[in-house]
Amino acid sequence: MNAAGNKERRSSRATFPEHERSKGETARAGRSPELHQERAVQTRLQVLEAAAGLFDRRGYAGTSIKDVADEVGMTKGAVYFHYPTKEALTIAVVEAHYARWPLLLEASQSKGLGPMDTLIDLLDQTAATFRDDPIVRGGARLQMEQPLPPGTLPTPYIGWIELLRQLLAEAREAGELREGITPDAGAHTLIAAFFGTQHISARLDRRSELVRRWADTRDLIFYALRA
Amino acid sequence: MNAAGNKERRSSRATFPEHERSKGETARAGRSPELHQERAVQTRLQVLEAAAGLFDRRGYAGTSIKDVADEVGMTKGAVYFHYPTKEALTIAVVEAHYARWPLLLEASQSKGLGPMDTLIDLLDQTAATFRDDPIVRGGARLQMEQPLPPGTLPTPYIGWIELLRQLLAEAREAGELREGITPDAGAHTLIAAFFGTQHISARLDRRSELVRRWADTRDLIFYALRA
Repeated sequence: MNAAGNKERRSSRATFPEHERSKGETARAGRSPELHQERAVQTRLQVLEAAAGLFDRRGYAGTSIKDVADEVGMTKGAVYFHYPTKEALTIAVVEAHYARWPLLLEASQSKGLGPMDTLIDLLDQTAATFRDDPIVRGGARLQMEQPLPPGTLPTPYIGWIELLRQLLAEAREAGELREGITPDAGAHTLIAAFFGTQHISARLDRRSELVRRWADTRDLIFYALRA
Repeated sequence: MNAAGNKERRSSRATFPEHERSKGETARAGRSPELHQERAVQTRLQVLEAAAGLFDRRGYAGTSIKDVADEVGMTKGAVYFHYPTKEALTIAVVEAHYARWPLLLEASQSKGLGPMDTLIDLLDQTAATFRDDPIVRGGARLQMEQPLPPGTLPTPYIGWIELLRQLLAEAREAGELREGITPDAGAHTLIAAFFGTQHISARLDRRSELVRRWADTRDLIFYALRA
């Protein structure tokens, strides 16, 4: 089985620009004047990550601006300076969640793998990111809970389904997709199985088993998808 | 491919005792005195179904006791008579959701199919039930949103995973499970893919495509599971 070999794949995380910038700024802190502005950017990111962590653990209803302020050791007023409402903070976490994926895709595509292996690599990295990245975890729970009026947050899943449909169409052209499987059916199945795996792991084991569970599910599904 | 033949399966829904009882009572309405009590049971069920429908469409935060009362043409006080708090109503919807599954299992097991086909039949019926049954839909959204403190609602997924693990162990003994697949990995993959499919269909098309999407996903996964 071709897909089985991927079990040993390193889960090297793609780097996220926000995180890199955050570290760089800490190192340079103490100078002025545009560093004042850089510190504001860093503080804004700290607030965002703290909020994402709280949303992940307690959900939207269980998280207040006061909780976020306490988490980063700031006043409520200081948090409101960066995000004027809890809704604004919610939207920012979900948008930051979605901003992760193009970077992961770029990282997987730069490895020079075939279409099917690029897809496998992308989903493996995505599983590790759901396990490790508070912004991604917080954004995922907010999308599940749908706390804001319809239309306020991006429609989930459709971007992923479209991306996987494209990658599977490339796999078909490369002769890597099993006869009789449409890219559309394959994309829907992969996204359903991936998000089901990550959600169930979030509920049952706080995602500690996510990478292992995804490896099992991935091997089964790619066995059925591979030519 | 063995699993492909299941596409044509009828989606005959299992009957749920609550629904049967409700219909019977409507026919006999007007008599007394224990019918007074039967009407109370019927009213209670109407409230439960109305609440489930609202939870499904608007979520926990978007649904008030007043909304439920309006939906069934009752006063708020009358709703409170049956369910003293919104939390009590929430717990009742989720418990009624879980009470569906033993009946579906019994129906699938009574068909005299082999273990793997029993499992396929059960999941097909479950997909149709998610599409058609307001109690199941409302309970599913409440479980996703986790609106109550941890421990208040049953832990989701574990009952399903355990049931499928047992059915796949039976399939293995019957020589129907592909070499190298463990019942544990198969059960986790099926439940993840099933709940992912139903959740994504709920978000993208209000479950109108659920049965078709599940058929695609089922065919792919059982291709990989079958000996």
